[in-house]
Amino acid sequence: MNKTEPRTLPGFMELLPQEQILMNQMKDTIRKNYEKFGFLPLDTPIIEDSKVLLAKAGGETEKQIYRFNKGDNDLSLRFDLTVPLAKYVAKNYGELAFPFRRYQIGKVYRGERQQKGRFREFYQCDIDIIGDGTLSIINDAELPNVIYNTFKELGFGKFTICINNRKILNGFFEYLALEDLSADILRIIDKIEKIGKENVIKELQDLKIDLEKINQIISFLEIKGSTDEKLQALKDLKISNEKFEKGLQELEDVVKYIRLFEVPEENFKIDLTIARGLDYYTGTVYETFLDDYKSLGSICSGGRYENLAEYYTDKKLPGVGISIGLTRLFYQLNEMKLIQTEKKSIADILIISMTEDFEYVAKIANKFRNEGKKVQIYFEDKKVKAQFKYADKLQIPYTVIIGEDEVKAKTYTIKNMKTGEQEMV
Amino acid sequence: MNKTEPRTLPGFMELLPQEQILMNQMKDTIRKNYEKFGFLPLDTPIIEDSKVLLAKAGGETEKQIYRFNKGDNDLSLRFDLTVPLAKYVAKNYGELAFPFRRYQIGKVYRGERQQKGRFREFYQCDIDIIGDGTLSIINDAELPNVIYNTFKELGFGKFTICINNRKILNGFFEYLALEDLSADILRIIDKIEKIGKENVIKELQDLKIDLEKINQIISFLEIKGSTDEKLQALKDLKISNEKFEKGLQELEDVVKYIRLFEVPEENFKIDLTIARGLDYYTGTVYETFLDDYKSLGSICSGGRYENLAEYYTDKKLPGVGISIGLTRLFYQLNEMKLIQTEKKSIADILIISMTEDFEYVAKIANKFRNEGKKVQIYFEDKKVKAQFKYADKLQIPYTVIIGEDEVKAKTYTIKNMKTGEQEMV
Repeated sequence: MNKTEPRTLPGFMELLPQEQILMNQMKDTIRKNYEKFGFLPLDTPIIEDSKVLLAKAGGETEKQIYRFNKGDNDLSLRFDLTVPLAKYVAKNYGELAFPFRRYQIGKVYRGERQQKGRFREFYQCDIDIIGDGTLSIINDAELPNVIYNTFKELGFGKFTICINNRKILNGFFEYLALEDLSADILRIIDKIEKIGKENVIKELQDLKIDLEKINQIISFLEIKGSTDEKLQALKDLKISNEKFEKGLQELEDVVKYIRLFEVPEENFKIDLTIARGLDYYTGTVYETFLDDYKSLGSICSGGRYENLAEYYTDKKLPGVGISIGLTRLFYQLNEMKLIQTEKKSIADILIISMTEDFEYVAKIANKFRNEGKKVQIYFEDKKVKAQFKYADKLQIPYTVIIGEDEVKAKTYTIKNMKTGEQEMV
Repeated sequence: MNKTEPRTLPGFMELLPQEQILMNQMKDTIRKNYEKFGFLPLDTPIIEDSKVLLAKAGGETEKQIYRFNKGDNDLSLRFDLTVPLAKYVAKNYGELAFPFRRYQIGKVYRGERQQKGRFREFYQCDIDIIGDGTLSIINDAELPNVIYNTFKELGFGKFTICINNRKILNGFFEYLALEDLSADILRIIDKIEKIGKENVIKELQDLKIDLEKINQIISFLEIKGSTDEKLQALKDLKISNEKFEKGLQELEDVVKYIRLFEVPEENFKIDLTIARGLDYYTGTVYETFLDDYKSLGSICSGGRYENLAEYYTDKKLPGVGISIGLTRLFYQLNEMKLIQTEKKSIADILIISMTEDFEYVAKIANKFRNEGKKVQIYFEDKKVKAQFKYADKLQIPYTVIIGEDEVKAKTYTIKNMKTGEQEMV
């Protein structure tokens, strides 16, 4: 028979079992923490009607979309979890209790240019809180608290949740009479970490902004110090602009509540350079960095938006949300050997039987399973040495050996596969 | 702005949060039981190269496939989890430890004709055990044990795992010199539950099988009695055919080991009418029925196959597997109001605050979360009555009320939302 090469498409993550266990542990930790704060689970289809999914999309995103026809239907694979959420909330508005707090952990699809570490199928782990008409600013402090709890448990060392407010930026540009250029300016200053100050200045000059204003923008972006010092410095600017003042008040409130939630000072900071490229953020914005691995970029981002579902409904639905790009994060941490590799096995125990009395073997397996242990019995007719090798390869921490002696004595021998210690029980 | 109707495609399940919680509970229970037996997790891409995915497929399945081009790539969405497993095992043969035991719980796609209760996107929950060259018959008894544990915990009442062996059927047809027609005959007798005995006879006659042989087939299929009586009746047929005898021996062994695994007698039986339509089953076959809801059809099916990955590799990889069609099962049980609806909430506690002292409120929330409770704080500026209504709508079992009195006394009031009982703690 002609054989087809069993290949997996590039840009699609497919892990070996031991890596998959680690990936699942991360996913479970994220889910556990999202649920700890009472977020409700959602699971929307991966395929949507293109008309619905692309009601808002355009530009770069639309080009990346997996779009195709099946029969008479024009279909697309979801490219994020936010648009399906907007559809869902608009569709089920009458059934939901607001504030509607949901999490969704699922795969999304983007036909990105092929590149190492870039994925075309990847997990997003989102939480959003959607208000009906209004939504308290305290929610903007709740999300950093969830993220703090999540990354603390994930255990990849120190991390910092960076916070800013788009109203401060937008108000500042209004004050400079540069509001028509604010989208462009935001896009440019968003890149300051990547391209450096000089290039930001250059790009701002290309927009024909005069140097005095550019200097004001740069000194604004370079406000330094502790969280309280930054807040004070922003006040000291005495910018009499309504939007700016509102944004500053929001940022102060968010900081206040983050502290009340007992998120440690070292795990969050104000970063006035964060703008998030996307148009729909209107208030608080977040990015999160691993302190020792800043080169990974933001591993968890999001923000406040005015109106989740305006393409589907007249209802005003403000929200705040944040997303972990799990596949990319896992890939990077794994490449850097940063993922804890201690427990790689599903099974706690492999039972190795050297007896014809299978009844006793099965009883011992049931006993351990009833105690909550994960147990595999080795059934194949292989030498004991091969069975130990199997346990080693699967990193199963304990083997239970049952020979004729053990059957007679109604005992079993347990072996710690790491230390080699054996004990008859 | 023109609004797009926020619709979800027909044939795609999208649940309200309280149903989603129940669905997730089922998924978690299945996963937990699969892991209890040491099955390793797998998560393969939903999109595969069509050439790889369709190496084997043909006929009805191929017509249902979501297949499309993206750039120069001919892509397809997976229609089951078995073909991706075959690809995976062939691709990673050198990295895996055999027997390779994996579970996969994931969505698959089939563009079925639109029909109530039929889904185009649905979860399959599969376990398979793959041997390298050989695989002990004990594995064929392990799967019913896993399924027994799983459905016992899912708790939908009595269920029966029906077991047969294709070699018995095939050997029987060989003995009747009808082996050339065996695929057709299997296809027909597989439908006996659906179309009845008379129609089976009629369809067998259409194959030009003479009446004497048809009668032998029917009396074979009508062997009755307990498991042991059926095994004895099969022996008593004294059919001197190697395949038949091998199948009978395998079936006896499977029954023996199922009993040693302590699966209760009431939860399994031999059913000689089960053939499973698919060509690739070569030994043990399974179907599972809820005793009180037989009309649901088999809710968990599978069997033994000779060669998992022959389209990708020369390695002989025998396996045995079984699959739960979760989406359809959930839909049907939910329609019949059979799913336990007691606990519908994620949050255990909603904190209702009537104080300006948010610090105290946040401390209480942290305290409960550290104790492992899932806690939501109500942040919005709404009347207390509205907050209680919110807890009710989300079915949150307890509210914790914190007013000025509680802050002063460093206490809180806890209310059981079901009974209305309140207590200050």
